[in-house]
Amino acid sequence: MKMSIRNQITGKVVSVTKGEAMATVKVEIVGGHTLTSSITRESADDLGLEPGKDVTVLVKSTDVALGVEG
Amino acid sequence: MKMSIRNQITGKVVSVTKGEAMATVKVEIVGGHTLTSSITRESADDLGLEPGKDVTVLVKSTDVALGVEG
Amino acid sequence: MKMSIRNQITGKVVSVTKGEAMATVKVEIVGGHTLTSSITRESADDLGLEPGKDVTVLVKSTDVALGVEG
Amino acid sequence: MKMSIRNQITGKVVSVTKGEAMATVKVEIVGGHTLTSSITRESADDLGLEPGKDVTVLVKSTDVALGVEG
Amino acid sequence: MKMSIRNQITGKVVSVTKGEAMATVKVEIVGGHTLTSSITRESADDLGLEPGKDVTVLVKSTDVALGVEG
Amino acid sequence: MKMSIRNQITGKVVSVTKGEAMATVKVEIVGGHTLTSSITRESADDLGLEPGKDVTVLVKSTDVALGVEG
Repeated sequence: MKMSIRNQITGKVVSVTKGEAMATVKVEIVGGHTLTSSITRESADDLGLEPGKDVTVLVKSTDVALGVEG
Repeated sequence: MKMSIRNQITGKVVSVTKGEAMATVKVEIVGGHTLTSSITRESADDLGLEPGKDVTVLVKSTDVALGVEG
Repeated sequence: MKMSIRNQITGKVVSVTKGEAMATVKVEIVGGHTLTSSITRESADDLGLEPGKDVTVLVKSTDVALGVEG
Repeated sequence: MKMSIRNQITGKVVSVTKGEAMATVKVEIVGGHTLTSSITRESADDLGLEPGKDVTVLVKSTDVALGVEG
Repeated sequence: MKMSIRNQITGKVVSVTKGEAMATVKVEIVGGHTLTSSITRESADDLGLEPGKDVTVLVKSTDVALGVEG
Repeated sequence: MKMSIRNQITGKVVSVTKGEAMATVKVEIVGGHTLTSSITRESADDLGLEPGKDVTVLVKSTDVALGVEG
């Protein structure tokens, strides 16, 4: 499926912290950056997320803010 | 200011497309990725965004989804 | 790609209103509901969105609020 | 109150999973679709959400992405 | 309708800037703060938004980030 | 850092409820309003959030909806 979601970056899961309702997933992408994703616990289970798994990070453009120094 | 916003990646503005109410900003980050940000036209003007300008991309964790192949 | 995005509903594009930076897309889903999506103008062009086209509506669970009467 | 929130669909709660901070609520809407909502635990308690309760699902247009096949 | 949306603040519209697809609305709330809302042009028209009109600002908790100095 | 995030309001933390993955933070701002923020547990820990701490509430304009009476 081709999506309107402009930001798609491939990476590898570093850690998964599961709560009852939500899960926090750390993903390492190129350049040494580690991104954080907050998804439902159900999604983390359904996708079988665990350290080392290849994933694609998805972010809608309207959710991307910008900052400049000074 | 230290922020709860977990995802902060530095990059450089590639292009700015301005509409009346909104602006679409393309930012190149490390690894050859280009991210897209949709912000208000006012913000684009206030931050003086233009090609070549250094910026930090900001994304709240709850806005980061994940996908896996297969 | 299997995604963490829990809400995926198929529908058909009813209308596309394009601005310089953003586009508003109306999608009719089952049950007579018409959903509204605000995406970048670029995405609307890239996906070739036009009335009659089949699409899948995608919404992350953290973006879904609820209301009750009374 | 009339709201700018374009997407409002009525449904019925199917399940509520409560964590300490957040809750995941499943809502069945027309056409056999089940939507997932991630709200604060506090909201789930305040609204008295439980299976069988009638609710309205609310989604802002800027949070609605689209996908097309192929 | 009672909503899961935790943040509801009353205010008065200060200005409305309309584009083809989106509109930017400035709302003055108590304490001298002016908030900015980006909604669809359609919503701005439907709600009859114009300077001086009383409105309620609505923000889902998952969209609220925090920062601390130092 | 100067940010595109239009809505920035200073306040004081009233309470912090921590789950495994997420935390709910209540912040009192001017005018007697109390705002609710849902952030990762990690962010709440990193920022050292606790009752009485000064914080800045941050909300992107695209996450601000509006309502009118009648």
